[in-house]
Amino acid sequence: MIEVVLLGFGNLNSHLFEALYSADNVSVKQVFNRNQIKLLPPYENFDFTDDISKLVPADVYIIGIPDDAIAAFSQSLPFRNRLVVHTSGGVSIDQLAPKNRRGIFYPLQSFSKTRKVNFKTIPICIEAEDKEDLELLRRLGQSISDEVVEISSEKRAKLHLAAVFVNNFVNHLYQLGSEILKEEKLSFKLLQPLILETALKLENLSPEQAQTGPAKRKDVKTIEKHLHLLKDNSHKEIYKLFTEALGKKKWD
Amino acid sequence: MIEVVLLGFGNLNSHLFEALYSADNVSVKQVFNRNQIKLLPPYENFDFTDDISKLVPADVYIIGIPDDAIAAFSQSLPFRNRLVVHTSGGVSIDQLAPKNRRGIFYPLQSFSKTRKVNFKTIPICIEAEDKEDLELLRRLGQSISDEVVEISSEKRAKLHLAAVFVNNFVNHLYQLGSEILKEEKLSFKLLQPLILETALKLENLSPEQAQTGPAKRKDVKTIEKHLHLLKDNSHKEIYKLFTEALGKKKWD
Repeated sequence: MIEVVLLGFGNLNSHLFEALYSADNVSVKQVFNRNQIKLLPPYENFDFTDDISKLVPADVYIIGIPDDAIAAFSQSLPFRNRLVVHTSGGVSIDQLAPKNRRGIFYPLQSFSKTRKVNFKTIPICIEAEDKEDLELLRRLGQSISDEVVEISSEKRAKLHLAAVFVNNFVNHLYQLGSEILKEEKLSFKLLQPLILETALKLENLSPEQAQTGPAKRKDVKTIEKHLHLLKDNSHKEIYKLFTEALGKKKWD
Repeated sequence: MIEVVLLGFGNLNSHLFEALYSADNVSVKQVFNRNQIKLLPPYENFDFTDDISKLVPADVYIIGIPDDAIAAFSQSLPFRNRLVVHTSGGVSIDQLAPKNRRGIFYPLQSFSKTRKVNFKTIPICIEAEDKEDLELLRRLGQSISDEVVEISSEKRAKLHLAAVFVNNFVNHLYQLGSEILKEEKLSFKLLQPLILETALKLENLSPEQAQTGPAKRKDVKTIEKHLHLLKDNSHKEIYKLFTEALGKKKWD
């Protein structure tokens, strides 16, 4: 039985709580949050504390708080030599206070309050200074996911950077698409099957193989028509930049 | 029974062929293609022709060929006063030769040879000059899809433009993500659950509500770290442009 305490209860840790709670071989002992929170049924009687001096013993403490608060918070923990991990893609293992054994437990996914997630398919990136700790994190990860990978802080930083491109920036393109449709009072729903298929195509094809469209085939007539249709300058700028990038590329 | 002839047999028309072939109330009479093609079982005995003078009578002729070939091809059809539609997002109805009754039958999706598509959820955008033709296209659309919408050529051009943003440009961001991982010999598979969830989130959330990440929260430390990690100048340029766009925006 791996005993776990969750420190912080934002989007990630609240999803992690539910997944770990129902996992075999894992016992979630306590949830800590700086502010009082109400756990919803069936967890309403679960051991919650907002008093850091009341933390109970556990095999691993999982910090799920904003990136810039991790260092100071880990320093404030009232114990030593226990395994403390954080769940952030962009923060190095060195940011954790060295008075405890340090590690990373980073589920590579974007979590929202309103959406259920299935951890089974989510890659969990682990790292630890100590070999036994790494094995414990591996077992903990495997209790909820089929995809547990050891990744160094250096590589994780690159992974997080790539995630910004395929998540935040992609979502911004969804936003621009929705703005273009709004001008014509067309529903964004019309684009959703295309958006989903564009993501699903990567099951069979590399992004390079999946690419289509006027920029790829250097269809100057359509490109000029599109630039003429775009009224917003920031939309135009992005259109030009991507069209140039796709046009420059050599396609097999 | 709506009788259909397909003109051209690229990605779109070959998928359309299968969908219409198994639809109730639709009879696909013939497939024409400029070059000889081999229809695969169970269609191997289907009426195929590469001779435009041999086209059989039908209620509607569906052109599925490259955009810039549509005008001349529609002019070359050896008949008059029949309903001829094209399937392109970016080509106006006026491009079709006026000697026939003109219309549009545009399934808003990206088609690949290697992927099955489910037409049920694909929006089919229809347009026709004649009211009865519009009704025929609506019935034809409804025979394969739950989402048939009448959209003018002007609005369709904007829809196609928005589709370029959420399909071609999004796919280019996937490509950049994959390039960043390749530098670290990390598998692109690691990003796929995130990519899929980013698309699926739009079921519950608008792109604006779904947005997260360092640019949105103006996390200067992470942004600077990312700019430092990016070696490729075109990656850097896109990172800056999106971060500025997301930072400028006012978030509720």
